[in-house]
Amino acid sequence: MANFPSTLETLIDKFASLPGIGKKSAQRLAFFMLTRSDEEADAFAAAITAAKHSIRFCSVCQNLTENEICPICASDRRDHSVICVVSEPRDVLSIERGREYNGTYHVLHGVLSPMTHVGPDDIRIRELLERVAKEDIQEVIMATNPDTEGEATALYISRLLRPFKVRVTRLAYGIPVGSNLEFTDNATLNRAMEGRTEMLPD
Amino acid sequence: MANFPSTLETLIDKFASLPGIGKKSAQRLAFFMLTRSDEEADAFAAAITAAKHSIRFCSVCQNLTENEICPICASDRRDHSVICVVSEPRDVLSIERGREYNGTYHVLHGVLSPMTHVGPDDIRIRELLERVAKEDIQEVIMATNPDTEGEATALYISRLLRPFKVRVTRLAYGIPVGSNLEFTDNATLNRAMEGRTEMLPD
Repeated sequence: MANFPSTLETLIDKFASLPGIGKKSAQRLAFFMLTRSDEEADAFAAAITAAKHSIRFCSVCQNLTENEICPICASDRRDHSVICVVSEPRDVLSIERGREYNGTYHVLHGVLSPMTHVGPDDIRIRELLERVAKEDIQEVIMATNPDTEGEATALYISRLLRPFKVRVTRLAYGIPVGSNLEFTDNATLNRAMEGRTEMLPD
Repeated sequence: MANFPSTLETLIDKFASLPGIGKKSAQRLAFFMLTRSDEEADAFAAAITAAKHSIRFCSVCQNLTENEICPICASDRRDHSVICVVSEPRDVLSIERGREYNGTYHVLHGVLSPMTHVGPDDIRIRELLERVAKEDIQEVIMATNPDTEGEATALYISRLLRPFKVRVTRLAYGIPVGSNLEFTDNATLNRAMEGRTEMLPD
């Protein structure tokens, strides 16, 4: 016997197939699972199946949802003339956490990345254009990450939107609130300088 | 909506309950699972259930097995008068890999650890004593890890075995084969010096 029992080997292989989990970690996780109660292990398995089978993409904004249309797109308390474009579902959560934004979202599920062969057809750009073409959209706010790929994606989409009569904006760059100048990198400082706004004392 | 859909939140929580997996990693793993095909996700869930329900402890040596008795304990080609005591199932694999040892094993499933409140009743010591009392055992080889807890566990068990007429041995300490003196720590060097053996040139 130079192996674990086959069902255990299978479970180790499954864990090892997850991103960022090596063979040793997979072994550790599989052993941990064996130490749980039957109920806990079954609940874990059921959670995978339930999530996988019940989660789909909102037919409007492409965010993850358990319904045909997500709660935000279905809400009549949101401003449906504004679309905030983000790359991942978790970005929606980040912006919602701010409790300021009251428009809708569009989740691209990725960014353009020539290095990893992600092109315009691999992310949900077409669905965004269809929305802008069909619905009465006043403004599209580009809120992809402020890195090279996020910038390029925002720029690419803003060009595609040019034919439509819609205002396209980008999240402001600047010094994070609560941060200080000493620890702010040069690129951010320069952007903050360029984007400086009038101070209007009362 | 300041949350993901509830089935997704549940899955994230499940992953986060695994050792060494934080909230962010759990999110990443759950998202990864959503990108898999239905078949792959179901296979993952099934692997958990299958392993959990089919794996048990060998009634003799306490190693993980899918049967009442593990292949090693059931084999008539192994020397059943020798027991090698290890702390974890993976240690059995390590020793089997060497293809030298032909006796049986006893898996403790842990080591004594006052710091984390693991006492003699929390690991499979009683089962070992029963084996030594009932079976015709000639030698018990202590093969716990050469760290403080492994040493203490080996010492504790060797004392319990004193009343039985059985030879109790410990794996040799020394310089790893293929290593060199320069990079060998002092404790190991001292142990290697103490345990020096006669050279017998032909």
